[in-house]
Amino acid sequence: MNTQMTTKPHERLAAYLSEDMQQVGALIRERMASEHAPRIPEVTAHLVEAGGKRLRPMLTMAAARMCGYSGPHHIHLAATVEFIHTATLLHDDVVDESAQRRGRPTANLLWDNQSSVLVGDYLFARAFQLMTEPGSMRVMQILSNAAATIAEGEVLQLTAARNLETDEDIYLQVVRGKTAALFSAATEVGGVIAGADDAQVQSLFAYGDALGIAFQIVDDLLDYQGDAKATGKNIGDDFRERKLTLPVIKAVKRASDEERAFWVRTIEKGRQEDGDLEQALELLHKHDTLSATREDALAWTAEAKSALGALPDHEVKDMLTDLADYVVSRIS
Amino acid sequence: MNTQMTTKPHERLAAYLSEDMQQVGALIRERMASEHAPRIPEVTAHLVEAGGKRLRPMLTMAAARMCGYSGPHHIHLAATVEFIHTATLLHDDVVDESAQRRGRPTANLLWDNQSSVLVGDYLFARAFQLMTEPGSMRVMQILSNAAATIAEGEVLQLTAARNLETDEDIYLQVVRGKTAALFSAATEVGGVIAGADDAQVQSLFAYGDALGIAFQIVDDLLDYQGDAKATGKNIGDDFRERKLTLPVIKAVKRASDEERAFWVRTIEKGRQEDGDLEQALELLHKHDTLSATREDALAWTAEAKSALGALPDHEVKDMLTDLADYVVSRIS
Repeated sequence: MNTQMTTKPHERLAAYLSEDMQQVGALIRERMASEHAPRIPEVTAHLVEAGGKRLRPMLTMAAARMCGYSGPHHIHLAATVEFIHTATLLHDDVVDESAQRRGRPTANLLWDNQSSVLVGDYLFARAFQLMTEPGSMRVMQILSNAAATIAEGEVLQLTAARNLETDEDIYLQVVRGKTAALFSAATEVGGVIAGADDAQVQSLFAYGDALGIAFQIVDDLLDYQGDAKATGKNIGDDFRERKLTLPVIKAVKRASDEERAFWVRTIEKGRQEDGDLEQALELLHKHDTLSATREDALAWTAEAKSALGALPDHEVKDMLTDLADYVVSRIS
Repeated sequence: MNTQMTTKPHERLAAYLSEDMQQVGALIRERMASEHAPRIPEVTAHLVEAGGKRLRPMLTMAAARMCGYSGPHHIHLAATVEFIHTATLLHDDVVDESAQRRGRPTANLLWDNQSSVLVGDYLFARAFQLMTEPGSMRVMQILSNAAATIAEGEVLQLTAARNLETDEDIYLQVVRGKTAALFSAATEVGGVIAGADDAQVQSLFAYGDALGIAFQIVDDLLDYQGDAKATGKNIGDDFRERKLTLPVIKAVKRASDEERAFWVRTIEKGRQEDGDLEQALELLHKHDTLSATREDALAWTAEAKSALGALPDHEVKDMLTDLADYVVSRIS
């Protein structure tokens, strides 16, 4: 069996970066400790050790390596990115009242909302401590800007998610904030710490931005057409939680008066009945919005790959190209 | 009427720093804006404009001025400190399920927990953006360390508050974290930005630390003996919320077996009945723990004033001495 062909792109990247990633893992474990409050590492370990793909810190490492950096500060930046991500997951699960994450009960269920809010705050603070260590003003600005953009995207989502006036532009703003901002900051700081020139840094930003958007669109699409076993998500969770995502936004735009009344009742007013999910799926199929959403994801993937063009040839560059394809392979 | 005598110390300090504080206010309003998510400034304004004393940013300004600094970066640092404080208030009210803050309904009540968590995150990120602007590594380390210590203190409180094993040492750790860490960081960064020498910076830290501890002990004491009209707190809130604060910790230590059973039932198990608050107050009086707690607050005030000794003579220094007395005047 040819492992090259059967290994997934993020696994090839992980193998290539394995030594670096071990150092990131060690730094994360070191910094999630707390002298006085043992609940902090307990809650953090529950998430950190749940077997996430660590895609975001890998992007930082990959960008730094591709631009010729050999360390050591990419380790701190990768750990910073993972801490920001973990903090937002803890807070998201409180905000969404989620009970499952990565196939396991959420921290807010196992402990309580209080612990999730406060341990999230601790991880944010730890992230900011870590990001100061390389001593680069530009890196600190990029990462603190990203943290603000993430929170802004999440707040915008709160008010936009159940409002049928939300159009594709607003959806894109939300996604750029809540998901793509950390992807693009992850790749951008990798280039900055490596001393890459402005055009390269801009390309890395554009790659992360487009990859993050594709990633989120795929996630939203899988919620309506995924295989629950493979994705760990149940079909229709977003519908039941009344989240206005891209497939529905496209269907609302094309809706007849009667169809619009259905979306008003189920999404805006949240008065859902048996059979509504099936009806929603029927409308998505009728207007072919799942295919249109898939096309959008593919277009963002193409954008991500094209952004890599300005970067020097490097084996990591090929892996990042493959990674962009992989992100949409779940819907191909 | 002699205004000197009737004006409160924090008001004298505010008058002295009024021009600086106006700039801080303007910067706070500028930075709490959000292009995309109008809920962010709505929620923030509810808290920021509720008429808090802005004690913490004043401490930064006072420290910087006293050490001969004339700007402009103390403005950014003072705004940073106020943003961190506001973010922790938003999250605290979610964690405590509070309905009132500064005599008004809390943000979690007016909007929802989701908004409080996410707007708090936004303000943390804004604080970190602001703190990078003066370009001082040491300042960034002090403030990001303080943010981690605050969260650590809050998590420790979660596990310690309803546990009768919590002793005065643990109480002090919690208070140092959740309250004093931001006071001491506020004074310390004021000295650092002014280029004060190490001994002076250490004195400023010690002043903020002791002032913060005194402030919190007074707050905990007022919960059992305050005048609800003057403090805006109801007698016994901490008891009803089963928070083990200093007056109770001291009473538990001196408790007979029967008294200990009372504390186990009311604080640890939370099975409270009519008349329990009166019984609790009786036990605090019996063991004289309100007086003992008051003595502790006064000792920390003395410590704060004595820490100022190493600093140069300055009119602000006199105001800070008075401020330390004022903090405990509410219980004198």
